[in-house]
Amino acid sequence: MTGEKWVRIITAQTPTNIAVIKYWGKRDETLILPINDSISVTLDPNHLCTTTTVAVSPAFHSDRMWLNGKEISLAGGRYQNCLREIRKRASDVEDEAKGIKIAKKDWETLHVHIASYNNFPTAAGLASSAAGFACLVFALAKLMNVKEDEGQLSAIARQGSGSACRSLYGGFVKWIMGNNKDGSDSLAVQVADEKHWDDLVILIAVVSSRQKETSSTSGMRESVETSLLLKHRAQEVVPKRIAQMEEAIKTKDFPSFAHLTCADSNQFHAVCLDTSPPIFYMNDTSHKIISIVEKWNRAEGTPKVAYTFDAGPNAVLIAHDRNAASQLLKRLLFYFPPGADTDFNSYVIGDKSILKDAGLENMKDVESLSPPPGDNSTQTYAGDVNYFICTRPGRGPIVLCDETQALLDPETGLPK
Amino acid sequence: MTGEKWVRIITAQTPTNIAVIKYWGKRDETLILPINDSISVTLDPNHLCTTTTVAVSPAFHSDRMWLNGKEISLAGGRYQNCLREIRKRASDVEDEAKGIKIAKKDWETLHVHIASYNNFPTAAGLASSAAGFACLVFALAKLMNVKEDEGQLSAIARQGSGSACRSLYGGFVKWIMGNNKDGSDSLAVQVADEKHWDDLVILIAVVSSRQKETSSTSGMRESVETSLLLKHRAQEVVPKRIAQMEEAIKTKDFPSFAHLTCADSNQFHAVCLDTSPPIFYMNDTSHKIISIVEKWNRAEGTPKVAYTFDAGPNAVLIAHDRNAASQLLKRLLFYFPPGADTDFNSYVIGDKSILKDAGLENMKDVESLSPPPGDNSTQTYAGDVNYFICTRPGRGPIVLCDETQALLDPETGLPK
Repeated sequence: MTGEKWVRIITAQTPTNIAVIKYWGKRDETLILPINDSISVTLDPNHLCTTTTVAVSPAFHSDRMWLNGKEISLAGGRYQNCLREIRKRASDVEDEAKGIKIAKKDWETLHVHIASYNNFPTAAGLASSAAGFACLVFALAKLMNVKEDEGQLSAIARQGSGSACRSLYGGFVKWIMGNNKDGSDSLAVQVADEKHWDDLVILIAVVSSRQKETSSTSGMRESVETSLLLKHRAQEVVPKRIAQMEEAIKTKDFPSFAHLTCADSNQFHAVCLDTSPPIFYMNDTSHKIISIVEKWNRAEGTPKVAYTFDAGPNAVLIAHDRNAASQLLKRLLFYFPPGADTDFNSYVIGDKSILKDAGLENMKDVESLSPPPGDNSTQTYAGDVNYFICTRPGRGPIVLCDETQALLDPETGLPK
Repeated sequence: MTGEKWVRIITAQTPTNIAVIKYWGKRDETLILPINDSISVTLDPNHLCTTTTVAVSPAFHSDRMWLNGKEISLAGGRYQNCLREIRKRASDVEDEAKGIKIAKKDWETLHVHIASYNNFPTAAGLASSAAGFACLVFALAKLMNVKEDEGQLSAIARQGSGSACRSLYGGFVKWIMGNNKDGSDSLAVQVADEKHWDDLVILIAVVSSRQKETSSTSGMRESVETSLLLKHRAQEVVPKRIAQMEEAIKTKDFPSFAHLTCADSNQFHAVCLDTSPPIFYMNDTSHKIISIVEKWNRAEGTPKVAYTFDAGPNAVLIAHDRNAASQLLKRLLFYFPPGADTDFNSYVIGDKSILKDAGLENMKDVESLSPPPGDNSTQTYAGDVNYFICTRPGRGPIVLCDETQALLDPETGLPK
């Protein structure tokens, strides 16, 4: 192969996901094995996804990676674990059109280039590492003709970032904690696909924060070491909730879904608070959003919206249907109008049709919103939310066949 | 007795207390019986106390009460329980000097007037009901010559407000949850008096809040009904902490005391968050104060300050000694200088000698404070704290013999 000039290239797109029954705590730090099952909703990759192009060529001298255009080191254990596990499973590849022939054993010496791009701010606390590692593993598996199915790939992605394993499927996904010491049975399965419950609308409030947050990796380690409530949660509370949540999803029982989602988000944050030193991911704005939703759900007599918060102050709000979503958006924009220097058009992004449903086409419409029934306060919090993203449950990873979407040059294998 | 004009009057002063192992959750709502033991520190009544004057006269036509100068209804069950239980235990009273003679059975028909005054804002979330009910019961007991000791009185005060039972003693106090169905063994005992560990200095940050808080009565009821973590806390976690805390107090082991105090405050708030709907008592300012203390304690290698928060955003900070307290005050005033319209003199109240120790005599001294070592941020939060109170562990209830301190007129039995 030496001296050859070919470049084999694959581009894939992988969604993020938001847990509705939370993963918090590892029983094995290296293999990333959790102390409880978790369940997530995959988010529509049209609005939140990672695109990753991987390339292989005998001309490459080392494994290299670019994230959002900037070269980063692959030396970390998490990248190395994923690369090693995928390489182990590589098969013969033959691309007659391009005259490429790679034997299984060649993969041990061939190097790869990886370019990855998130269509949302990496630092916004929107599970970029979940989509990122899922996409890395999925794209490499396609490149190397790995025969394993998504479930088995999920067990590899898990070693990059725990929650990444849940991004290998669309719809509703369960990460089974597994029992094996080697982690081979700690993988994701699909509970239901994205078409099963397609009324749901998801609204994400990206919340301004003045505090630097604890990383989820160190946060969950500290919780495992110091929280006296976490073990009880993992062993006694979560197993029941997992069964109830699967049932709620399968039967599209929104009240149960909403109750479990909110309760489990709150319990996760309770465990963070029970950690020493305590971890605060939610802030006053997060609390205010919860109050708005709780009050509305109570007034309606049945939940219209579920909320869940990951390791940061952003709210992920899951509305029962488009009607509930448009009402929710009106309420949220009443309390959280855009800040003085924010353009309305960039304040609500993603699926803007919800804005239309709500009759909100410009800043004037927002200004003329009235307080929700039963709220006599007129206090609003302009600037406390950076922006909103409207989305929905979405599909799993796909290969993008259109070469114009590749992030690496098909000739050089370097970033375009 | 009919037609007689005498008024018998007693004035008492009772401290507030702050729990270091928290009470959260009742097993009996009427008798106010808790689901776990708790331990508190009594605060110096010179800075935070309730003064209550009680009077009896054959000329009174009904039981009446004035709180901070305003007449309030005594019809509530909590007042009625206290009045009934104290009347039951009344004895003969003879005051030869005033020519007053009251037989045990007369108390059934005699009416009382009660006037109560807090030397701190009632609404500030500083356990005013604890001091208030303790003082009511203590003063009435003295008025009616009740022979029961403080422990037995505490079981009566408990029926007014649970935490009131811990205000019947100075120093460090344990409320034993008890086992009896009638609550007769659910009472307070003194762990150590206020002289035992008199190095401690207590600093209270009264924090501004934009949110209306859930009352602790309804909050703890909702936690008992919905939190899946509370039972585990009450049954598995607290009993061990109570034993450890008693030991820490007896041996004046500040690191253990601080660790337990902080962890238990955080766990109480964790349980609030695990409640449905979730209860948030701490806000971003509370979180910031915790971060300041945690960071400093970590930097010192051993805790200098413990923090604890009740059902509200106010921080109660317990410093190891005067030196730690003055350093703490400097740090807090750096991050939380007085708001623009706040007078420095009314911003730090109570024992002002700590201000002197810290070399802070005026606003200029505050302005020239530099950030604590290791903090490169210069972000400060003027106005986020309303004011600070400097105090210390203090004594239990006393009778004030000086009649000029009475809140009722000795002739008419009406508010002065």
